[in-house]
Amino acid sequence: MNDLKQEDFEVKKLGKATLVSPIYKNYAEEEISNELFIDESRKIVYDASLSSYKNTLESGAEPISFLKAGPRKDIYFDPSKTKAAIVTCGGLCPGINNVIRGLVNGLYYRYKVRNIWGIQYGYQGLIPEYGHEMKKLTPEVVKDIHLFGGTILGSSRGRQDISAMVDALERENINILFTIGGDGTLSGNHVINEEIERRGLKIVTAGIPKTIDNDVNFMTKTFGFDTAFTTAAAVVRDAHNEATGAYNGVAIVKLMGRDSGFIAANAALAMPDVNFVLVPENEFDLHGEKGFLAALKERVLDRHHALVVVAEGAGQNLFDHEDVKKDKSGNIKHKDIGVHLKDEINKFFKSEDIEATVKYIDPSYIIRSEVAIPADSVFCNDLALNAVHGAMAGLTDFVVGRWHNQFTYLPIPAATASRKKIDVNGPLWWAVLETTGQPLKMKDE
Amino acid sequence: MNDLKQEDFEVKKLGKATLVSPIYKNYAEEEISNELFIDESRKIVYDASLSSYKNTLESGAEPISFLKAGPRKDIYFDPSKTKAAIVTCGGLCPGINNVIRGLVNGLYYRYKVRNIWGIQYGYQGLIPEYGHEMKKLTPEVVKDIHLFGGTILGSSRGRQDISAMVDALERENINILFTIGGDGTLSGNHVINEEIERRGLKIVTAGIPKTIDNDVNFMTKTFGFDTAFTTAAAVVRDAHNEATGAYNGVAIVKLMGRDSGFIAANAALAMPDVNFVLVPENEFDLHGEKGFLAALKERVLDRHHALVVVAEGAGQNLFDHEDVKKDKSGNIKHKDIGVHLKDEINKFFKSEDIEATVKYIDPSYIIRSEVAIPADSVFCNDLALNAVHGAMAGLTDFVVGRWHNQFTYLPIPAATASRKKIDVNGPLWWAVLETTGQPLKMKDE
Amino acid sequence: MNDLKQEDFEVKKLGKATLVSPIYKNYAEEEISNELFIDESRKIVYDASLSSYKNTLESGAEPISFLKAGPRKDIYFDPSKTKAAIVTCGGLCPGINNVIRGLVNGLYYRYKVRNIWGIQYGYQGLIPEYGHEMKKLTPEVVKDIHLFGGTILGSSRGRQDISAMVDALERENINILFTIGGDGTLSGNHVINEEIERRGLKIVTAGIPKTIDNDVNFMTKTFGFDTAFTTAAAVVRDAHNEATGAYNGVAIVKLMGRDSGFIAANAALAMPDVNFVLVPENEFDLHGEKGFLAALKERVLDRHHALVVVAEGAGQNLFDHEDVKKDKSGNIKHKDIGVHLKDEINKFFKSEDIEATVKYIDPSYIIRSEVAIPADSVFCNDLALNAVHGAMAGLTDFVVGRWHNQFTYLPIPAATASRKKIDVNGPLWWAVLETTGQPLKMKDE
Amino acid sequence: MNDLKQEDFEVKKLGKATLVSPIYKNYAEEEISNELFIDESRKIVYDASLSSYKNTLESGAEPISFLKAGPRKDIYFDPSKTKAAIVTCGGLCPGINNVIRGLVNGLYYRYKVRNIWGIQYGYQGLIPEYGHEMKKLTPEVVKDIHLFGGTILGSSRGRQDISAMVDALERENINILFTIGGDGTLSGNHVINEEIERRGLKIVTAGIPKTIDNDVNFMTKTFGFDTAFTTAAAVVRDAHNEATGAYNGVAIVKLMGRDSGFIAANAALAMPDVNFVLVPENEFDLHGEKGFLAALKERVLDRHHALVVVAEGAGQNLFDHEDVKKDKSGNIKHKDIGVHLKDEINKFFKSEDIEATVKYIDPSYIIRSEVAIPADSVFCNDLALNAVHGAMAGLTDFVVGRWHNQFTYLPIPAATASRKKIDVNGPLWWAVLETTGQPLKMKDE
Repeated sequence: MNDLKQEDFEVKKLGKATLVSPIYKNYAEEEISNELFIDESRKIVYDASLSSYKNTLESGAEPISFLKAGPRKDIYFDPSKTKAAIVTCGGLCPGINNVIRGLVNGLYYRYKVRNIWGIQYGYQGLIPEYGHEMKKLTPEVVKDIHLFGGTILGSSRGRQDISAMVDALERENINILFTIGGDGTLSGNHVINEEIERRGLKIVTAGIPKTIDNDVNFMTKTFGFDTAFTTAAAVVRDAHNEATGAYNGVAIVKLMGRDSGFIAANAALAMPDVNFVLVPENEFDLHGEKGFLAALKERVLDRHHALVVVAEGAGQNLFDHEDVKKDKSGNIKHKDIGVHLKDEINKFFKSEDIEATVKYIDPSYIIRSEVAIPADSVFCNDLALNAVHGAMAGLTDFVVGRWHNQFTYLPIPAATASRKKIDVNGPLWWAVLETTGQPLKMKDE
Repeated sequence: MNDLKQEDFEVKKLGKATLVSPIYKNYAEEEISNELFIDESRKIVYDASLSSYKNTLESGAEPISFLKAGPRKDIYFDPSKTKAAIVTCGGLCPGINNVIRGLVNGLYYRYKVRNIWGIQYGYQGLIPEYGHEMKKLTPEVVKDIHLFGGTILGSSRGRQDISAMVDALERENINILFTIGGDGTLSGNHVINEEIERRGLKIVTAGIPKTIDNDVNFMTKTFGFDTAFTTAAAVVRDAHNEATGAYNGVAIVKLMGRDSGFIAANAALAMPDVNFVLVPENEFDLHGEKGFLAALKERVLDRHHALVVVAEGAGQNLFDHEDVKKDKSGNIKHKDIGVHLKDEINKFFKSEDIEATVKYIDPSYIIRSEVAIPADSVFCNDLALNAVHGAMAGLTDFVVGRWHNQFTYLPIPAATASRKKIDVNGPLWWAVLETTGQPLKMKDE
Repeated sequence: MNDLKQEDFEVKKLGKATLVSPIYKNYAEEEISNELFIDESRKIVYDASLSSYKNTLESGAEPISFLKAGPRKDIYFDPSKTKAAIVTCGGLCPGINNVIRGLVNGLYYRYKVRNIWGIQYGYQGLIPEYGHEMKKLTPEVVKDIHLFGGTILGSSRGRQDISAMVDALERENINILFTIGGDGTLSGNHVINEEIERRGLKIVTAGIPKTIDNDVNFMTKTFGFDTAFTTAAAVVRDAHNEATGAYNGVAIVKLMGRDSGFIAANAALAMPDVNFVLVPENEFDLHGEKGFLAALKERVLDRHHALVVVAEGAGQNLFDHEDVKKDKSGNIKHKDIGVHLKDEINKFFKSEDIEATVKYIDPSYIIRSEVAIPADSVFCNDLALNAVHGAMAGLTDFVVGRWHNQFTYLPIPAATASRKKIDVNGPLWWAVLETTGQPLKMKDE
Repeated sequence: MNDLKQEDFEVKKLGKATLVSPIYKNYAEEEISNELFIDESRKIVYDASLSSYKNTLESGAEPISFLKAGPRKDIYFDPSKTKAAIVTCGGLCPGINNVIRGLVNGLYYRYKVRNIWGIQYGYQGLIPEYGHEMKKLTPEVVKDIHLFGGTILGSSRGRQDISAMVDALERENINILFTIGGDGTLSGNHVINEEIERRGLKIVTAGIPKTIDNDVNFMTKTFGFDTAFTTAAAVVRDAHNEATGAYNGVAIVKLMGRDSGFIAANAALAMPDVNFVLVPENEFDLHGEKGFLAALKERVLDRHHALVVVAEGAGQNLFDHEDVKKDKSGNIKHKDIGVHLKDEINKFFKSEDIEATVKYIDPSYIIRSEVAIPADSVFCNDLALNAVHGAMAGLTDFVVGRWHNQFTYLPIPAATASRKKIDVNGPLWWAVLETTGQPLKMKDE
């Protein structure tokens, strides 16, 4: 990350904020501490190591830093005239309803915005042809939705016509668009923003990154991730029971993780009966002396059961890549490594004349549709509230991030430029190696 | 069930019991109420309806009745010289460890039997060629096992040589063999018993029926069933979230239920967002005006989401039955109705030019490997204790049942003769019809 | 129970049923099996033992039997003109919302009753002075309430003026009153019924017994009980951790059980780390050679931790009974045995100069307010549906029971005449003795 | 915190590290990335804000920074000759067993230390008079302990003679002492260290801060906290059911939080039905126009139910402080604010002639004894592993901290100097204010 430039982290602002934050209106003005408000000079440095500090000192350059999130004293939109809309896109992730609830309550109670709408079924809801009506959102409507998984707004994958969507925003007089979605959704948000700018509209767009894989750069954690590996850990334990329940029992659990294996790694650390964690960051061979199957065989002959956790994006090198397919959201459609592993392991043990029982578990939908655990619930609420603060202050084309335990605002392109991955030389991966006892490399050089 | 004969329900007994039940040894003899003990005259009638009562009265015939389980005042085996063994066979089911724990503690604390062994990996453990050693079991070993799913003894499917197994029992001086397993296992137990009888050995065999499907005749409930539909209900709710998360979202959950749909039915009643419950007891067509797909289409067009729960044995009429396969345990290997439904639904909506999102969840291994919930935990303990009482009293070739809220002893052949099924004219199925709103029949006559 | 008379179990009926059950209306008449319907000749015998059968046979007397619950072919009320009301009284119990949901859906979907109302805050809601408005109930309103503990209608304790309540029923044109409550509530229901009869009104009243203690006679199980001991079992495990966490650690868990110790006994069986179960059915002394404290001391000195589960109604003999108080519902207000035990144990160990750490946990409100587990959820739904069937058929002054795994109708006085208790000579208590290893008696004769 | 000095954050080191980290021994040396190792020059700055950066730049002073935790290339102790001991002190907290497990596995697998012992019942275990034997710890012993709450080593409160404890360490040849405990325990650790230094012994001591209240300075989070507010959130929801179940129902939940209200605040955010959060950081009056009772009355009259969450250390200003008592660990013994509130609320409503039902729940022991949730499980493992790394490298008198999402080493005095508290002008408290709608101040100035 040597080529980071500070300008990549500057968040756009729609205009000069002139209204006074209505937080005052709930309370006597003199009761509000000035410390409560954050202004644009407040930033969090990217690298908090002392050495980076000293390097910067020597070079004289300003360190890369992120805008600190939080309430602004002056706001851009007049709450009494503001209309906000929320859209949720892509696959399910625990916490979406919590974020929706947080947005609605933040707008309603902190800023007295009364005109809040839910766009149904993702970006489709902005395209008249689909006929999905908008849904009025109030604190009463969202009161208990944090107790349910899924999304009360529905979702969809895939792109829609940018111009038609901005037409809809104009037609509906929407001032603030909150998008809850992954890379594709946020890129859509960014392009919508460009179109808004082109048309000179007074509309801001704010994103809350939704990726169960926890792979957003410059964000320590994304919402739903804690719930995901919590749920995954329980399934991993079940799989352990299945593996030990049979002689030479092998259980395989496929978990989410298209490009990054954070869920697989953390589930294995939380429920440390796992013997192999296979992630996209660590290529492996199936066959050969150092390959995975040889290591698995050694384990099975030694202990007569084995537990394998595989991230969906692992082992893509094992497939012939000529026919790369993409799903509606533009993500590369991975071959199913879980099913492939199951088949190959069965074949392998048969060829080795070892009687083994292979069981395969794919809990993806169960995890994605789970209710957010309390830690996620609080986190979602914070993310949503900070998105509201930013949007009301006139910031646009941004996402809410978290860095060094503080909330930040990042320009969407910075957040979507690349993906966060497990550092195979770092402490997370080494903790996995220690827990599993798996070989450092399962690949012939 | 008009052709039931009382002789089918008479449990064999090895010989005259002469020892006094060691329950006395813990307490002063005078403190023990005589009510505590059950003798062979205590029976539970099969049909507790007043009309059956009257019919019997008129006909003069004795009503069908089951032997009541419980401690006998006189026992057959001398605890100080008794050696007991436990074997677990077939697929996982919540509560196996609880049953093992109950057997060990019942033998140890109630009867002072100190020589208790676990046979590893099912009936394989009785065949020397496999080399699975027996595992000494004590209260200390089983202390916390009820907090874990799976089986600490391991399991296996398939038959083994009867003569070789009885050889093993003789060689090891085993007096009591407890088998925890399904139909195949119990039939094995029965044949073992025949061989024991042929050889004139003083060995009894007792079975605890293990079928997550709850399909044992003359038993209100089998262990693990409550846990199974409890876990299934949570998955059903997740699936509801997946279905509502997409426009025209269809979620399919495949649950256990080879011949009987009890898990599917009860999970749907417990989490009543389900729109279709498909069970083996209720044949359906896919196509045609009254077929399932037409009903599904109507539902999806009306509400834009649908939730389908399907038992694994449902819809077998949809498959060409020429190539019937059996698994190792001798059960007919069903074609995968879940995957079939997913494919057919996808094809159907494509052919109808309706954009739908179909999601398929198969939580079978997750359910099977689950820890027993407290209600099951208590039930397993009771089953085990009653198995111990029966075996110590010299009963053999029997299973522990439950009928009219009392524990019973049934001859194995009576328990395995046929399978309990949902009565589609009874209250359970009608409750399902009401909850789902699905058509009474999805089949052209 | 030798003095049972059949006439005590005859359920009153308002009049001759003349309307045809609307179950027909959903389906073609020929499709409905006649087996579905239950008529008044269908009864379940009280005692299903073979010996009772034979005794009856000899004596020529008709056996005691209970009316079988279920849909009647002919109904008494015209659904299109029927108004039903639901009231929930007394303390919380898991499953109340499930019962409400079941009643509403049963009335609405099975019988097409559209006029359903919730009476708020118990019997208070029938007294105009309190000003609690009635709440319209529809399937939409009750859709997700089974996912929450508590009662959406609110509750209250205590009696209200009978005449004023019947005035309210008349004034509101209510035809069916469903009461969900304990002994006091049901007795209220009965007296309301007498007043209705006196006035010659066409109103039926149906009760669903709500007692978390599971102490209703002639009912195998009451709703909420499974959830109660499930939740209690988890707390018992926590208490075990507290007990073992300190040297000579003693943890006390007080559980519900005013007159019967079923929750305490079952929680201890489900989580068998408990060393002492103290229940109302088994009097004990604190002091003396055979008293509880001596037994506790022996245990603590031996293993250095002990876990005590006490039902709230246990040990009432330890209190001076001069000042018996009653709560609003008319129940005797017990002295707090939990706090008393904590104090006495502390005092005792101090007097014995043994350093011990005593921790006291009272999870009552946590258990009472819990969401029903799936097994309870299904059970509540069945109870509710059967209450609807009975009421629509014109039965009155009855409760829905469960006996020999079938649903029954009992006259309210039969259900409230006495309380079900643990038989200390029966298998439940003996399983407790075995699990805990506690002395048979902790009392000097 | 303007008076922080860098020297307060310098961790002592026993001597020059000379041995090569055995991490190498598992793998070929060339396979190990140098990035894996952390040396003493790696530090994390305390304040990651850009403004602090600039201030430092201007002043020329070095910023306050913490030593980064992690494996060192050179270690101080020879694993083959090292003996390590673990002690757990004070009250229970979720995750203690996970930390024990992490320490044992880290020592065993990463460093090949084979001589690991558990000291039983806290510091008492180092005093021969108590007679608590040490317990040999191996990976096999700790295999499944992370699945249980509590501590397998037992715990105790209170101080022990320092000299006698160091005698024990010498006598037993212990090289590394890991202490898991709160302020008192860590202070004990520090004094033990001083005595070790005085005697010139080659013993290091490492602490893992255990405070369920999450109130350790310079640590973003302490272990068990996530689990604590997760469990608390469920109880808060139960309490909501109790509150709404009665007319003018008031439910009070007392949660842990001696000096800091983090658990109360986070539980309320996770389960946002709470109307009042009372914490030590925000003094309140009971009586008076602006007092809590007036605000409660307003709420109850408006909505007819109210939910109050109170931290155990809140409202201490309400008590007469003449008779301050301390517990064995030296903590001030707080008057029970929960019981006090219950009594005062009851009195108040009676005096106001408002019929209200007040229910009080104290789930403290239930929360403390809970199993760690997966997020905590992973965190505990990381803390433990880093404690091992530091100790093996010869660091002493330190605790493992977490700052800016990295693990750090802090000298014990820095960690125990003062307590982290909620900033009532910061975003956490404002989120609470918004969620509850409670007044900013409940106190007359």
